Amino acid sequence: MVEYELPKLGVAGSNPVARSLILIKGENFFEILHQDNESNARTGIIKTKNGEIETPSFMPVATLANVKTQTPKDLINAGVQVFITNTYHLHLRPGEDVIRKLGGLHKFMGWNKPIVTDSGGFQVFSLAQLRKVTDEGVEFSSHIDGRKEFFSPEKVIDIQTELGSNIIHPLDECVPYPSSHSYAEEGLNRTLKWAKRSKSHFSKKERDDILMFGIIQGSTYKDLRKIAVEKIVSLDFSGYAIGGVAVGEPTDEIIEISNFTASLLPSDKPRYLMGVGSPEDIVKAVASGIDLFDCVIPTRNGRTGTVYTKSGKIIIKGNAYKEDNSPIEEGCDCYTCKHFSRAYIRHLFNTGEILGQYLATLHNIRFYMRLMAEMREAINNRIFKDWSDTFIKNFKQEV
Amino acid sequence: MVEYELPKLGVAGSNPVARSLILIKGENFFEILHQDNESNARTGIIKTKNGEIETPSFMPVATLANVKTQTPKDLINAGVQVFITNTYHLHLRPGEDVIRKLGGLHKFMGWNKPIVTDSGGFQVFSLAQLRKVTDEGVEFSSHIDGRKEFFSPEKVIDIQTELGSNIIHPLDECVPYPSSHSYAEEGLNRTLKWAKRSKSHFSKKERDDILMFGIIQGSTYKDLRKIAVEKIVSLDFSGYAIGGVAVGEPTDEIIEISNFTASLLPSDKPRYLMGVGSPEDIVKAVASGIDLFDCVIPTRNGRTGTVYTKSGKIIIKGNAYKEDNSPIEEGCDCYTCKHFSRAYIRHLFNTGEILGQYLATLHNIRFYMRLMAEMREAINNRIFKDWSDTFIKNFKQEV
Repeated sequence: MVEYELPKLGVAGSNPVARSLILIKGENFFEILHQDNESNARTGIIKTKNGEIETPSFMPVATLANVKTQTPKDLINAGVQVFITNTYHLHLRPGEDVIRKLGGLHKFMGWNKPIVTDSGGFQVFSLAQLRKVTDEGVEFSSHIDGRKEFFSPEKVIDIQTELGSNIIHPLDECVPYPSSHSYAEEGLNRTLKWAKRSKSHFSKKERDDILMFGIIQGSTYKDLRKIAVEKIVSLDFSGYAIGGVAVGEPTDEIIEISNFTASLLPSDKPRYLMGVGSPEDIVKAVASGIDLFDCVIPTRNGRTGTVYTKSGKIIIKGNAYKEDNSPIEEGCDCYTCKHFSRAYIRHLFNTGEILGQYLATLHNIRFYMRLMAEMREAINNRIFKDWSDTFIKNFKQEV
Repeated sequence: MVEYELPKLGVAGSNPVARSLILIKGENFFEILHQDNESNARTGIIKTKNGEIETPSFMPVATLANVKTQTPKDLINAGVQVFITNTYHLHLRPGEDVIRKLGGLHKFMGWNKPIVTDSGGFQVFSLAQLRKVTDEGVEFSSHIDGRKEFFSPEKVIDIQTELGSNIIHPLDECVPYPSSHSYAEEGLNRTLKWAKRSKSHFSKKERDDILMFGIIQGSTYKDLRKIAVEKIVSLDFSGYAIGGVAVGEPTDEIIEISNFTASLLPSDKPRYLMGVGSPEDIVKAVASGIDLFDCVIPTRNGRTGTVYTKSGKIIIKGNAYKEDNSPIEEGCDCYTCKHFSRAYIRHLFNTGEILGQYLATLHNIRFYMRLMAEMREAINNRIFKDWSDTFIKNFKQEV
């Protein structure tokens, strides 16, 4: 911890004051602004070379170097501060060499704020064909054209560095749910070896401008999660990602494991829960002290016509909305809600118009951004427990 | 012709002056601002209840109550002043009754500028199944669910009035290309009878706020076109649409027939060439004195990755653009060109991302709007002939 004079701060209403910052790497820091008294929830700031992320923060997923249907302008308008894009997919198309030659991911995508890349591990273990895993790495066939590829821990770091990501992740083995204890343990041991090699390889690059988070695996087994935390934390990463959750297990188990794992992680580093999730799961995980989230839910649901309100989800194609002149959500400040009725969006979905997918996605992203902003405000105002109880009571699975 | 004091005018740089306006209906007028000396090209203004249209003007096609992939905000940013939407499609989904209950097309779509509707004739004769045409009207099965429908001239006027369109069209029979003289003549005679009934039915509504254009049919036969003009013009519509061109005939024949037909039409009413077209065809038709155009080309091409530059069309998926860091068109002021490279748009198309369709469509519409604005400026500055020669010389079919 160091005292640090910060000229400007990305939180509305605060003044330049001397603050307690944790310098996690180079000039990049993590600062905890407020720690909730009634839960592990906290607000903070992660500073990267491309700007600050207010936490708890939700990262939309930009699988193929775009958040599906949305422009960077739309994301900015929605309040998005960071998104996550995909090492596996971008390696296959268009390739990290192409993106590097074109000036890196930020220039390629027209986005100058923070970008996070995953390790590609999840995709290699869920999407790729003819997988052959050894301690050396993983050989697989591209799901696009069957082309043989090989990911080693070193290669995955090289790809992410070449892409120009702000926060990168080491290659990990993500075991499916359910997995036996011994299978999960084997996967974990490989993940731990790979983490060490990744860290060592990345250190040689002397890239103080890029942060690397360690990934905690261990499936649903608490003993394995505990070992994972001890070993990964001993390698001293800039933050810690909880992986291998939300891979098919019941929602209670997601919360149970992420709660347990989060409680073991150091409090002075960002905690990231990968692939989560629904608004309710996010609210619960924030109470466990999670700072970062990513999930395809708001965008994928947007494209299929499931939209969010504080009362729950709406299937907009429903006949009930045929002559409904109200916006998706009363009071929502997004472009969709300010200009279009449920009836119009329903019409667009029922006639297969892309504009419907765009407008619904835009609303869903804004819904998630408002959710995170409200949580940050509730934590800062010391009313998070009340706020989250009310939110969960009102939010039905479907309305 | 009346002298009319107009407090403000939608053309940049002009001052409030007494001007010669042709009041075509109620408070709606057509004004010719400048008539070219070397061609029949002219600039003008069509004023409707929902605002002014600067002519020559291009109308993007909003088949199903949206210009595919684009928001009203995007259209405004591109300089779109009016679009055309589809009587046949909107009757089937969601139905004119639904749109009326929701406040009409303008409210439904979030667009407060002029809207034109076609008669549905073209779709009934090209898309619908099991067609049965009598003088009374046309019975057909919906191409969506086979539901039996009947369009009479009166019904089509009712639908368009209910939708709340600014400029409507009478039901017409659009014969395919090629058609025999006798078949084309039969279709034309029916169109003429229907036009008379449409005019009479619409008059009873006393809707001075809605303009109706007559449609000139007659296939590629000049004698039929001449008869059509005489009969339709004798009914005194607010403007005249040239229909039944660009239905498969060679491009020279499109220009030949539209040129011939336009020359017969009164000069004090707007002339609209339906379904045209490519940038070159539009430039040539403007020289014939056409004021309004509509075509799916910029939007359909946008969705399949064909984009426009002044040097010609580009198939953006091409391997040549893999590492091309330049915008689609150097100097273009659209959002796409200001923020993204050809390489990025190519990547989006090659990975099937909707955002690519959106960005390419956005550029193409802006390209068309710049084309029309440049033509208006060239006509007003008395350099249209030079301008059009240069444009056509530079514009290759493909680059």
